[in-house]
Amino acid sequence: MKKFVNDPRQFVPEMLEGITLASDGRLKYEPKYNLIYRADMPQEGKVSIIQGSGSGHEPAHTMIVGKGMLDAACPGDVFAGPPVEFVYETSKLLNSPKGVLHIVNNYTGDRLAFEQGREMCEMDGMRVETLLVNDDVAVKDSTWTVGRRGVAGNFFVIKAVGAASERGADLDELVRIGNKVIANVRTLGIALSSCTPPVKGTFLFDIADDEMEVGIGIHGEPGRQRTKLVSATEIVDIMLAAVVPDLPFQRGDEVALMINGLGGTPIGELYVLYGIAHKKLEADGIRVFRSYVNEYCTSLEMAGASLTLLKVDEELKSLLLDPAEVSIRVF
Amino acid sequence: MKKFVNDPRQFVPEMLEGITLASDGRLKYEPKYNLIYRADMPQEGKVSIIQGSGSGHEPAHTMIVGKGMLDAACPGDVFAGPPVEFVYETSKLLNSPKGVLHIVNNYTGDRLAFEQGREMCEMDGMRVETLLVNDDVAVKDSTWTVGRRGVAGNFFVIKAVGAASERGADLDELVRIGNKVIANVRTLGIALSSCTPPVKGTFLFDIADDEMEVGIGIHGEPGRQRTKLVSATEIVDIMLAAVVPDLPFQRGDEVALMINGLGGTPIGELYVLYGIAHKKLEADGIRVFRSYVNEYCTSLEMAGASLTLLKVDEELKSLLLDPAEVSIRVF
Repeated sequence: MKKFVNDPRQFVPEMLEGITLASDGRLKYEPKYNLIYRADMPQEGKVSIIQGSGSGHEPAHTMIVGKGMLDAACPGDVFAGPPVEFVYETSKLLNSPKGVLHIVNNYTGDRLAFEQGREMCEMDGMRVETLLVNDDVAVKDSTWTVGRRGVAGNFFVIKAVGAASERGADLDELVRIGNKVIANVRTLGIALSSCTPPVKGTFLFDIADDEMEVGIGIHGEPGRQRTKLVSATEIVDIMLAAVVPDLPFQRGDEVALMINGLGGTPIGELYVLYGIAHKKLEADGIRVFRSYVNEYCTSLEMAGASLTLLKVDEELKSLLLDPAEVSIRVF
Repeated sequence: MKKFVNDPRQFVPEMLEGITLASDGRLKYEPKYNLIYRADMPQEGKVSIIQGSGSGHEPAHTMIVGKGMLDAACPGDVFAGPPVEFVYETSKLLNSPKGVLHIVNNYTGDRLAFEQGREMCEMDGMRVETLLVNDDVAVKDSTWTVGRRGVAGNFFVIKAVGAASERGADLDELVRIGNKVIANVRTLGIALSSCTPPVKGTFLFDIADDEMEVGIGIHGEPGRQRTKLVSATEIVDIMLAAVVPDLPFQRGDEVALMINGLGGTPIGELYVLYGIAHKKLEADGIRVFRSYVNEYCTSLEMAGASLTLLKVDEELKSLLLDPAEVSIRVF
């Protein structure tokens, strides 16, 4: 295993400490619950927005805690949902008179933790609502999931409700907006390589030198099929053929187009995919409102990429363009 | 070779087209010279800032063309300097009454192209100045270089002169500021894996499963030594022991601290390195003014990281904090 780690069991805490130290006081860290949160939260006049999926998908979701995005993140270990205790204690610490919003990616472990955590909060008299993200069109159920998986589309849910929350939206309004994003976002991922969780120390799965996994899950779960590696243009065709008819996205629609790197693929290759997808969509009368080419939801150092389309209306366009603060810095 | 490519010889043009399509009209693309430039440049009242190194180091430098950064980039193919013609034609197209600034990373191929390109421009009566970036402390000369190599510190040179240029600084002032950054920035990189240039199709070099290359060059050139892979904390010790005494950075200094990923290392590991480095510097009385944890200058999908320190004064701090526009988007 070739990684920058000390004790692999301390990988997540050391990463969280690094994120906090890099934030110049903007973020606080509570090691007991793997909890990263905005130093200026909770606030009386704002719903608190919380996520707690597995680690290993960075920058999702611990590196997008900030104004206009998440208010707190309480991740589990690599590829493991957080314990119920993390969800409960985080929700209590971030509790606000306007309520708490849980954004949960649809994995059985995450769902159980957040359902039980919510029940405990409600017994304490707190008001909690939940958004369930399930944008991955690859498979109906999976080894980790009943129903579709939540993947890179999670970013758009957080961006939209985070912006609305800064504008003062109440909990019901955030649930409406979040569910609008969820209803209009679809993703398909393709992996070229496996990845190595630090504690495991060996590959999550094997894949031959000339193969790719179409519809890969972000924990290396099988997708639709294992096929021979094909050209970038053919890969975009496969992605669009899975994503476009699923909503469906249609002539006249405006979309946000995301090419998300899975961790080990250089951004130059992501822009190759982006250019091909952009041209194909525009040729089909689907207008690209805004581009997102970067890593948003990864699987450690997996080589691969996912394509996400979000159909936008005037409300979502406005929310996507609002300012935000995240840990990730480009200048 | 497992990459998202079509014809590998078209990798760079297809990437550049993708960058342009993602820019929403902000950038223009001239395929004849691999040229990406700001659609609103040249301007009469602004020096034009140009770079043209090899490709394969993205986001450097084609993805940081924009207001407050580069005005144009004319890269060569992967790990190859641009032809003289690219430099000359780009400089002519971007020529401004205030002059043209070339920012050149210190590699023999890049230097030759830019020295000859500058001579051709000067014969045409243009005013051109050059900044030579050489922040890599690893080796004095190398297989690709006479003198030290230019690596991730290049980002800070571009950020500072880009900001000053937007404020209206003239060419002499930009040369002064750029050389101040160059005099105060130092870097060391460590590689855990090799990488595969698309046209070559095979690894650039071999490295054993338990080894790392200390002082790696961004084209896979040898560094100081090949050693056994050690812990994250020991790696930061090696990086700081090379970088800190070189300037030297001293108690009471304020620094920008960059942990730059070389392409294949997940950002979670970069934050582990960041946290360790931040604590060690602060313990030695060196204050971290601002954190930079991301990919800034890569070697395709190489696993590895570099540490860069820039000693800042009030002028540089102010320039680093100015707004900028780049292709890379985090929200």
